[in-house]
Amino acid sequence: MMESVQQTITRVSQELNCSATSLRVAEHLDRHDELRLLRQEFLIPKISDLPPSDLSLVDGSEDCIYFAGNSLGLQPKNAKKYIEEELEKWATIGVHGHLKGSRPWAWAEDTLEELMAKIVGAKPEEVVLMNGLTVNLHLLMLSFYKPSPKRYKILLEDKAFPSDHYAIESQIRLRGLDVTDSMLIIKPRQGEDTIRTEDIVSVIEREGDAIALVMLSGVQYYTGQLFNMEAITSAGHAKGCLVGFDCAHAVGNAELQLHDWNVDFACWCSYKYVNSGAGGLAGAYIHEKHAHSVKPTLMGWWGHNLKTRFLMNNEMELQPGVKGFRLSNQPFLLVCPLQASLEIFNRTSMKDLRRKSVLLTGYLEYLIRHYYTKDPSAPDKPSVHIITPSDPQQRGCQLSLCFSCPIRTVFQELEKRGVACDMREPNVLRVAPVPLYNSFTDVHRFITALGSALSASGAK
Amino acid sequence: MMESVQQTITRVSQELNCSATSLRVAEHLDRHDELRLLRQEFLIPKISDLPPSDLSLVDGSEDCIYFAGNSLGLQPKNAKKYIEEELEKWATIGVHGHLKGSRPWAWAEDTLEELMAKIVGAKPEEVVLMNGLTVNLHLLMLSFYKPSPKRYKILLEDKAFPSDHYAIESQIRLRGLDVTDSMLIIKPRQGEDTIRTEDIVSVIEREGDAIALVMLSGVQYYTGQLFNMEAITSAGHAKGCLVGFDCAHAVGNAELQLHDWNVDFACWCSYKYVNSGAGGLAGAYIHEKHAHSVKPTLMGWWGHNLKTRFLMNNEMELQPGVKGFRLSNQPFLLVCPLQASLEIFNRTSMKDLRRKSVLLTGYLEYLIRHYYTKDPSAPDKPSVHIITPSDPQQRGCQLSLCFSCPIRTVFQELEKRGVACDMREPNVLRVAPVPLYNSFTDVHRFITALGSALSASGAK
Ligand SMILES: Cc1ncc(COP(=O)(O)O)c(C=O)c1O
Ligand SMILES: Cc1ncc(COP(=O)(O)O)c(C=O)c1O
Repeated sequence: MMESVQQTITRVSQELNCSATSLRVAEHLDRHDELRLLRQEFLIPKISDLPPSDLSLVDGSEDCIYFAGNSLGLQPKNAKKYIEEELEKWATIGVHGHLKGSRPWAWAEDTLEELMAKIVGAKPEEVVLMNGLTVNLHLLMLSFYKPSPKRYKILLEDKAFPSDHYAIESQIRLRGLDVTDSMLIIKPRQGEDTIRTEDIVSVIEREGDAIALVMLSGVQYYTGQLFNMEAITSAGHAKGCLVGFDCAHAVGNAELQLHDWNVDFACWCSYKYVNSGAGGLAGAYIHEKHAHSVKPTLMGWWGHNLKTRFLMNNEMELQPGVKGFRLSNQPFLLVCPLQASLEIFNRTSMKDLRRKSVLLTGYLEYLIRHYYTKDPSAPDKPSVHIITPSDPQQRGCQLSLCFSCPIRTVFQELEKRGVACDMREPNVLRVAPVPLYNSFTDVHRFITALGSALSASGAK
Repeated sequence: MMESVQQTITRVSQELNCSATSLRVAEHLDRHDELRLLRQEFLIPKISDLPPSDLSLVDGSEDCIYFAGNSLGLQPKNAKKYIEEELEKWATIGVHGHLKGSRPWAWAEDTLEELMAKIVGAKPEEVVLMNGLTVNLHLLMLSFYKPSPKRYKILLEDKAFPSDHYAIESQIRLRGLDVTDSMLIIKPRQGEDTIRTEDIVSVIEREGDAIALVMLSGVQYYTGQLFNMEAITSAGHAKGCLVGFDCAHAVGNAELQLHDWNVDFACWCSYKYVNSGAGGLAGAYIHEKHAHSVKPTLMGWWGHNLKTRFLMNNEMELQPGVKGFRLSNQPFLLVCPLQASLEIFNRTSMKDLRRKSVLLTGYLEYLIRHYYTKDPSAPDKPSVHIITPSDPQQRGCQLSLCFSCPIRTVFQELEKRGVACDMREPNVLRVAPVPLYNSFTDVHRFITALGSALSASGAK
C-alpha cells in the first residue's frame, strides 16, 4: 500500500531526526523529487520584481513563492525562443510562412493536439486547440444542448465560474426557455463547502429525465474540488443526459481520462496549469463516438478538410468530430508558448505529476493544519479552515483556505513577502503549489511567510 | 479637379523627358511620395529569404516584391519589441501582469480599439477587438439575423469567401430554414466580372421584403471589387433589412465610414492590410444606434462591465453595444503586433493612404494595360484582362489579373524572381501593392519580373 502524506512526513522527519515542521523535511522531499528539474524549464519571478514586494522584509533576490498557477501559469523558457522563430519567419518569408518552417501556420496547432490529448486522456482526433475557453464552451453547447419539451435542463454547480454561468444562461435564453426553470443548480449541503458526489448522482437520478445536459467544472475554481467525472458521466448517461466538463482548472492538474470516462465533450483554457500565457489558445474535446453524429452548429473554413480547404469552392467538406468545429485560422503567436509548455509536460506524465502533486499539496495541508487548526483553548488565535476536500481524489493541487479573520491585510502582508496567490474577500485565499515548477521548499517558505503576515497584520 | 493617374504619369514622364514606362517615373513618384518613410517601419523580406527564389535569376540581396498584403501583411518592426516587453512582464511578475505595465492584460485591447475605430470610421465604443474573423461573423449574425416567416433571406455575393459562405449557411440551418431558399446569391451579369451596384440595389428593392440581412464583403477577396457600402446600406434600410459587411479585405485598404454610412454591423480580420500576423486579433463593429437594443446571443465574462467583472457574483452587468459581445479574455501576444501596426496607421490617415493607393494601383494598372492589353494583331501574345473594376471608387489596392494563358508556370517564374503574390488557377493572379509599405518602384519591378516570367514560362 502507498504511504500516506502524513506517513511520509513522519518517516522523513524521523530519518532526519528533526521536527515534522522543519525546513529540512522540505529540502529532503525536494532532493528526492524526481520532477524537480522541470522547474528549470520555467521563468520564476524574483521577489524583487513583484510589484507589491517590500524589500525591507525579504530578500528580493530570491525566487518568489508563486502559488498563482491556478490563475496564470509561469512562462516556459522556450516560449520566447519559439515566438522569435516565428517572428523571424514572418519577417523573412512573409506569406510563405503558412506552409513553411517547423510550424507551418496553416496547421501549426495540429502537432500540438497530440500532446494536448495525452494530458486530457483523449485521442488526438478528439481534441482541438482554438479560440478562447468561453468561445469553445459556446460552440460545444450549441451542438450538445438540444432541449426538448421534457428534457431541457442544464445541471450546473452553484457559484460556477461567472463566464460558464453566463454562457449557460445565454444558451438557455437562445432556446427561448426560462432561465430559472432551466438552470438546475446544485449546492453543497447546509454547513458543507463542497458538493458530495452522491448528491450529484442522486440529483441526476431524481431529475435526470428533465436534464438535457450535465455541465460541471472538472475542478471547481473557488473550492478546488475535483469532481468525480467518471461517476457523474455514467450517472448522466444512465439517465440519457449528455455530460460535459469545463476543465479549465483540471487540465494539467488532475489526471483526466476524458475518453475512457466516456465524457461527451469538454473544454479548457491553457493559461493556468498549461502555462501558455494569458489569453492562450483554448482546447475542446468531443468523444469519438460523436464524430459522425454531432455536427458543429456554426461552421467556418477551418473546419473544412485541410487537403481541399484552399480550393475555395464553397462546398463544405466537414472534418469529422471536434476538428469540424474549427472556425478561424490559428494565431501562430499563441501556438508557440503552448508548444513550449506541452513539450515540458511530455517529458513527464500526468501520473507522475499527480503523484508529486498529492504529496506537495498534502504537505501544505499538513502544515496548515499543524499551525492553524482551530484551537478551542485560544479562540482569538487566527485559524484556517480548508474548504477544499482533504481526500486527494477529490482535489487537484489547489487549496482554498478560509481564515477566521478578514483576509485583505493578511494577503497584503503575504504579497509584501514575495507570495503570489489569490484572494477572495472576505476571508479566502486560494493557493496552488504546482507540481511542474513548485517545490516543497516553496510550501515551507509559504508557511513561514504566512506566520509573519498574520502577525504583521495584527491578526491575533 | 484632381489629376487622373494617367495624367500624372504623362506629366511626370514629360517633366523627366522619358517614356511613361521608364523606371524613372516610378522613382520620381517614390521621391514625391509623402508616405514613403512608413515602409521603414516594416520588415521587408529579402529575395534570398523567400523559399522559391532562384538566385541565378535575380539579386537575392534586394527586397522582395511583396504584393501579398491582401493575404498576409508584413511585420511592423515594433511588433517584436512589444512582444518582448510582455514576455518580460510575464517572466518577471507573472499574474500581476493582468493589472500592471503599459498593456495590463485585463484590458490591453481597450486602447487599441480607439486606433482601430479611426481606421474603420467608427466611434471607439462601436468597435471591439477579439477572436478570429469567422468567430465574430457568427457572433454578430446570431444577433442580427432574426428571420421571420416573411423576412428570412440573407443576401450575399456569389463566390463569397468560403468561411463567410459556410458561416451564412450554418446560420440559416441553425434557424431551421432551407439553405437554398434562404441564401439569396447575387452574381455579376453574364459576361461581366464584378457586380454592379445598381444590380445590388435593384435586387434589394425587388426582394427586400424577404431579406432579413444583407451580408456582403466590403472588398471582394477574389475580384478586388470595393462595394458601395453606403448605397447598399441605405437601399437595405429603405426596405427594412439589416446590413452588415465583412471588411476583411477592406480594412486598412479602403476609406471606411462605417458609422456615417449607418452600417449596422461589420467584422474583419487584422492580418491582411492591418499587419497583425496570421491569426491576429479580429475586429467587430456595431453601430451605436443598436447599443441598447441589440444584445449578444452568447454571453461571457468579458462582456461584463470591467469595473465589476471580477466581483464574480454571477450577475451579468452587460456592457452596451458591441463591447458586450466579448466572451473570453484577450491574448496579450496578439495585442502587441496589432498595436505596432495601428501606431503606424496613426502616423497617417486612411485618406492619405488612399490617395497614395489610388495612384499606386493606378500605376500598376497603367503598366499592365500598356504591355498586356489584348492585341488583335498578335492573338498569341499573352494578354491580361483586369477583373477588378477600373474605377478607383470601386476597388482598393488589389488588382485581379486574368491571363490569356495558364498561370501556374508564370506564377512559379514570378516567384523565382522574388515576387510574392497570390495565384488562383486556372489563370488569375491577385496582386496588391499596399500603400503603407509598397513603392512605385516595386510596381515597376513587378512589371519587369512579369515580362521575364512570361517569356521564361514559354507563354507566347
Ligand atoms: C473575406 C474573408 N472572410 C473570412 C476569412 C476567414 O478568416 P478567419 O480565418 O480569420 O476566420 C477571410 C480570411 O482570409 C476572409 O478574407
Ligand atoms: C472555469 C472557467 N471558465 C471560464 C473561464 C473564462 O475563460 P476565458 O476568458 O478564456 O474564456 C475561466 C477563466 O479563468 C475559468 O476558470
